[in-house]
Amino acid sequence: MEPLKLLSKIREQKPLIHHLTNWVTIYDCANVVRAFGALPVMAHAQEEVEEMTGIAGALVLNIGTLTPGFINSMMKAGKTANKKGIPVVLDVVGAGATRLRTESCAKLMKELDIGVLKGNAGEIGVLAGVEAEVRGVESISVSGDIRELAEKLAVEMNSTVAVTGKQDVISDGSKTYTVDNGHDYMSMIVGTGCMAASVIGCFTAVEADYAVAAASALGLYGLSAERAAEKSQGPGTFKQIWFDEIHALQKHDAQGLRIRHV
Amino acid sequence: MEPLKLLSKIREQKPLIHHLTNWVTIYDCANVVRAFGALPVMAHAQEEVEEMTGIAGALVLNIGTLTPGFINSMMKAGKTANKKGIPVVLDVVGAGATRLRTESCAKLMKELDIGVLKGNAGEIGVLAGVEAEVRGVESISVSGDIRELAEKLAVEMNSTVAVTGKQDVISDGSKTYTVDNGHDYMSMIVGTGCMAASVIGCFTAVEADYAVAAASALGLYGLSAERAAEKSQGPGTFKQIWFDEIHALQKHDAQGLRIRHV
Amino acid sequence: MEPLKLLSKIREQKPLIHHLTNWVTIYDCANVVRAFGALPVMAHAQEEVEEMTGIAGALVLNIGTLTPGFINSMMKAGKTANKKGIPVVLDVVGAGATRLRTESCAKLMKELDIGVLKGNAGEIGVLAGVEAEVRGVESISVSGDIRELAEKLAVEMNSTVAVTGKQDVISDGSKTYTVDNGHDYMSMIVGTGCMAASVIGCFTAVEADYAVAAASALGLYGLSAERAAEKSQGPGTFKQIWFDEIHALQKHDAQGLRIRHV
Repeated sequence: MEPLKLLSKIREQKPLIHHLTNWVTIYDCANVVRAFGALPVMAHAQEEVEEMTGIAGALVLNIGTLTPGFINSMMKAGKTANKKGIPVVLDVVGAGATRLRTESCAKLMKELDIGVLKGNAGEIGVLAGVEAEVRGVESISVSGDIRELAEKLAVEMNSTVAVTGKQDVISDGSKTYTVDNGHDYMSMIVGTGCMAASVIGCFTAVEADYAVAAASALGLYGLSAERAAEKSQGPGTFKQIWFDEIHALQKHDAQGLRIRHV
Repeated sequence: MEPLKLLSKIREQKPLIHHLTNWVTIYDCANVVRAFGALPVMAHAQEEVEEMTGIAGALVLNIGTLTPGFINSMMKAGKTANKKGIPVVLDVVGAGATRLRTESCAKLMKELDIGVLKGNAGEIGVLAGVEAEVRGVESISVSGDIRELAEKLAVEMNSTVAVTGKQDVISDGSKTYTVDNGHDYMSMIVGTGCMAASVIGCFTAVEADYAVAAASALGLYGLSAERAAEKSQGPGTFKQIWFDEIHALQKHDAQGLRIRHV
Repeated sequence: MEPLKLLSKIREQKPLIHHLTNWVTIYDCANVVRAFGALPVMAHAQEEVEEMTGIAGALVLNIGTLTPGFINSMMKAGKTANKKGIPVVLDVVGAGATRLRTESCAKLMKELDIGVLKGNAGEIGVLAGVEAEVRGVESISVSGDIRELAEKLAVEMNSTVAVTGKQDVISDGSKTYTVDNGHDYMSMIVGTGCMAASVIGCFTAVEADYAVAAASALGLYGLSAERAAEKSQGPGTFKQIWFDEIHALQKHDAQGLRIRHV
């Protein structure tokens, strides 16, 4: 796996990453895509999503502030992506917290071919059918081993599953990676999880092996956070410096990356 | 009043603070809740608001970018909160600037049991029925004494009224507090008022005396801003450092808090 | 042209800048208006846009996350502005990327009297009817000379056209300005273009010659970015420092402004 080579590809090709995402972290999702070198676009009107997805390198769906109408737009965009072979990343924000969220995820997972399903442990637990608690958009608890959960759900869905947390676990059912990069500050600010899905989107646009793409994305994302944290006084100033470090990634070697094939 | 004890409670219990809020400052509202130690969630679909409010520690309603449909969702969430005894904070953004805003506030105030009504002087003046001018979301003028206004409206509504400004005034009709913490930079950036309502939401989730909760919230909020301003070069860099200082609050004593029972 | 005199006027008069804008950069648009000294308000409900526009000093329309319903609200607000002589700035975000965007722009341009039409080279090229490529919201290519394009479209529309880019070009058909202020960091973060339209809105509220207003706005906007870049470690930290520098503009002389009448 050569994450920095994928990063270079993103910066050369500048793929369009089409988002249908939530209104809370939408700016950060766009900005992190720009920092990694791709071009973000946010467009959700039913009248234009198919056309916009059609010119995209990847589609990121994030249900953070969903409505039924918004899910319809996601379905349209997702079907276009599937027809054209454009990777789809689904961030299942708050799955398990309300029926609307859980059922909307189930519907999207059933009717679309999801390239990477991304969530925290609680969300993925809920969707894998094990006991789990999600409070709002926060994972409170999950029963069972996260790696096994990811592998089981990946096989069932025939896609890649990325579980983010202190240790990220990524599996496509036949192979599994862990990523140990990251910093506590990431969990102390809003948007870290959403941005992770957007970054995964960037990497799927240039790497057809989505497990490799997702692991590379999460590794570089976490590594840049570590570097930023060292220079920060707290989680507030950390966030801006993090963007600096993402922009600077190309200049660094990948020393410190802790991606393991397990 | 022991604001830091309430802060500790928030950080231990991590209550969910459910928001139906505006699209301008929604990120900051979520992020400040996280900085104070609670868990934010933003969810507005009529299909899920009752369920989400049902698991929340407080509900924050902010009409900054209202539509009639959004007000309907607020009503549903608010009624659930009232039924379950969950505190409701209403931020009356722009009341007085348009009929839609003034009337929507009146409707929410009439049909819901509001725990804390929060606004700037102009907005509260309009709702209390005195002469006042609100330009967009900015208080331009108000006739009469703010403390008397707050007390009068608190008695009429049988709730707590928090008027934010250079000096904050909080009254539940039987007792009144002033808070003199804060810094000019707060009025030079967008979102300060909205975040204040979200912070009040956090404190009402752990303190049943809402006047005490609101005064504690505004005191610590302003105090952290003062500390941040000292380290800042201007209102732009101030904002990030402010989040650092909120995260760091626990480590400090409360020296410098200027909350007075008047 | 005396940009700093216009800035002083904005800070004295504090005009209300009413936005119907996108959900991605809405915070930054509001915050930059505040930094320049005007009062931002974001309001999009059909039930209140006419009333809100009626008390505004300028109206900024930005189609970044448009829907047909949102365009209807823009039309209502725009007609009110036209009737009252309030300047309208239209930011044609993503024109050319989808039919919905291109057609919505055409409709707004046809039915409203646009004071300043603002876009990047690709967007303006599409609307001027020349060959151009827009990927999402990014200008990829345009055929022909930008200055000629701007002049031609300005004459056709009888309004001012502002084309932003490494060099900004502003024309009202009878006179044309270029602005060479700015820094590469501006293109490395999301929101720079949207904020530019909001800043132009502030200046049109105090200067009836819209070409002068737009050139002054873009000059000071770019100049403050240059100053911020010098103090920044990267595009992340740059953004906050940029806001500091905008707030500090008044204290500086205008040395370094590179606005030319061409």
